[in-house]
Amino acid sequence: MPAVTRREITGFSNPTVKYLRSLREKKHRKREGVFLAEGLRLLTDARECGHVPQMLVMAAGRDPHPLIAALEGSVAESGGEIIVTTPDILSKITGKDNPQGVAGVFAEFDTSLAALDRSRAEIWLVAQALRDPGNLGTMLRTGDAVGAGGLILIDDCADPFSVEAVRASMGAVFTQNIARATWDEFLPWLRGGNGQLVAASLRDALPYRAAPYAAPCFVMVGNESQGLPESYEMACDLRVTMPMKGSADSLNAAVAAAVLAYEVLAGLET
Amino acid sequence: MPAVTRREITGFSNPTVKYLRSLREKKHRKREGVFLAEGLRLLTDARECGHVPQMLVMAAGRDPHPLIAALEGSVAESGGEIIVTTPDILSKITGKDNPQGVAGVFAEFDTSLAALDRSRAEIWLVAQALRDPGNLGTMLRTGDAVGAGGLILIDDCADPFSVEAVRASMGAVFTQNIARATWDEFLPWLRGGNGQLVAASLRDALPYRAAPYAAPCFVMVGNESQGLPESYEMACDLRVTMPMKGSADSLNAAVAAAVLAYEVLAGLET
Repeated sequence: MPAVTRREITGFSNPTVKYLRSLREKKHRKREGVFLAEGLRLLTDARECGHVPQMLVMAAGRDPHPLIAALEGSVAESGGEIIVTTPDILSKITGKDNPQGVAGVFAEFDTSLAALDRSRAEIWLVAQALRDPGNLGTMLRTGDAVGAGGLILIDDCADPFSVEAVRASMGAVFTQNIARATWDEFLPWLRGGNGQLVAASLRDALPYRAAPYAAPCFVMVGNESQGLPESYEMACDLRVTMPMKGSADSLNAAVAAAVLAYEVLAGLET
Repeated sequence: MPAVTRREITGFSNPTVKYLRSLREKKHRKREGVFLAEGLRLLTDARECGHVPQMLVMAAGRDPHPLIAALEGSVAESGGEIIVTTPDILSKITGKDNPQGVAGVFAEFDTSLAALDRSRAEIWLVAQALRDPGNLGTMLRTGDAVGAGGLILIDDCADPFSVEAVRASMGAVFTQNIARATWDEFLPWLRGGNGQLVAASLRDALPYRAAPYAAPCFVMVGNESQGLPESYEMACDLRVTMPMKGSADSLNAAVAAAVLAYEVLAGLET
């Protein structure tokens, strides 16, 4: 293993700090093809599934930790850079008051539909025009939990590589495949192979309990305020409805995806 | 119906604007015993279940709308105040870039355990040390959907009357009972009557599908990063476990509550 060399940065105006802070904005992430993830647990999860940061940023004065040492080793081995900075600067970079003392810069993944292998998993999650990065990250986390293959983002969704989405995913951004496509790209792709498209709907829908789910099952939810366009719902193989006992007529999008995905999981297993 | 009189405010430094903006902070809400809710739909839902704002704040230049007129009528009738201001000032008040043109100041509700009637509903949600106001609001919204009686907040939770929680609740803050208590207050209250306390747990747990749920069923989730303390889990009548197929060992707290609550709902209905 090569020797671990660290570069120290103590000034807010350092170009590397500016670069790292710029990654909070989508246009800069896109230009650089990288994203920022933070937290020892998340970076360790990433490392365990083969994702090593190009750049590891650590707060000075942290107590030694075997997982930090392992991260440093992996980064050094893969030719990455290790930066040591002040806790204040690290806070500025991640935009969080109480940073966990470590962050990493990762190369963005291929998010083309063509890269998805639908035979890999029995459940896939699909989100249409999902605007809230927290919801998006939560869907990734739920996908990991139900053993989904990944999350397909249709139309104009939040950026899965934003700090907020990565944080809410609790590391699932590294374990779930992510694809981005328009509806006009997605539907032909879906119909080019096996796949049941399912959405929660009030239109001509079956009760969601024990509906005839079939693998690979693509569980789709729509935009937080508009829901799915009617034509998208009508293109589904199965529309299901969940009980709504109160005065509201919808669930939070990430919640609806989870309740439905767990039902699909149970249905496919019986 | 009394004549509707409106007061116009155009200056950011107006004391009423300062008062309204101060309600974004918990200490001011607590001192005044009020909270802020925004959006025509939410205020209409509130009105329909008997909650009329003390003060209604509207952006000038809105198109006339029968629901706005109905709100104004209710506020005037109950002796409340109607403020017309600029869209900019309304944005500042609600802290949202794209305000929906109307907001209201409501009296906080009684959040004592003593005010809860557990026979009112078969499901109740319980959150322990839930820190994220979005998760809290989402739990209220889910509670409304599953026909829960309300949400009981144990120990140090986020404020259910914060703008973020109210927004995420999508109006359920008005339809769900909310109680706040410490664990040492809650447990004796629970054991003073019927009630099955259920938590998602990895300790000595049954599969969550078709577990023996019984009404009134209290579905409890814990803090976002710590989960429930072990002693709290052990005090439950039933511990259930949900499949975790991936590398993570937990769900988002609001998601876990929803998946479990929908299973309880199905279990109680069969």
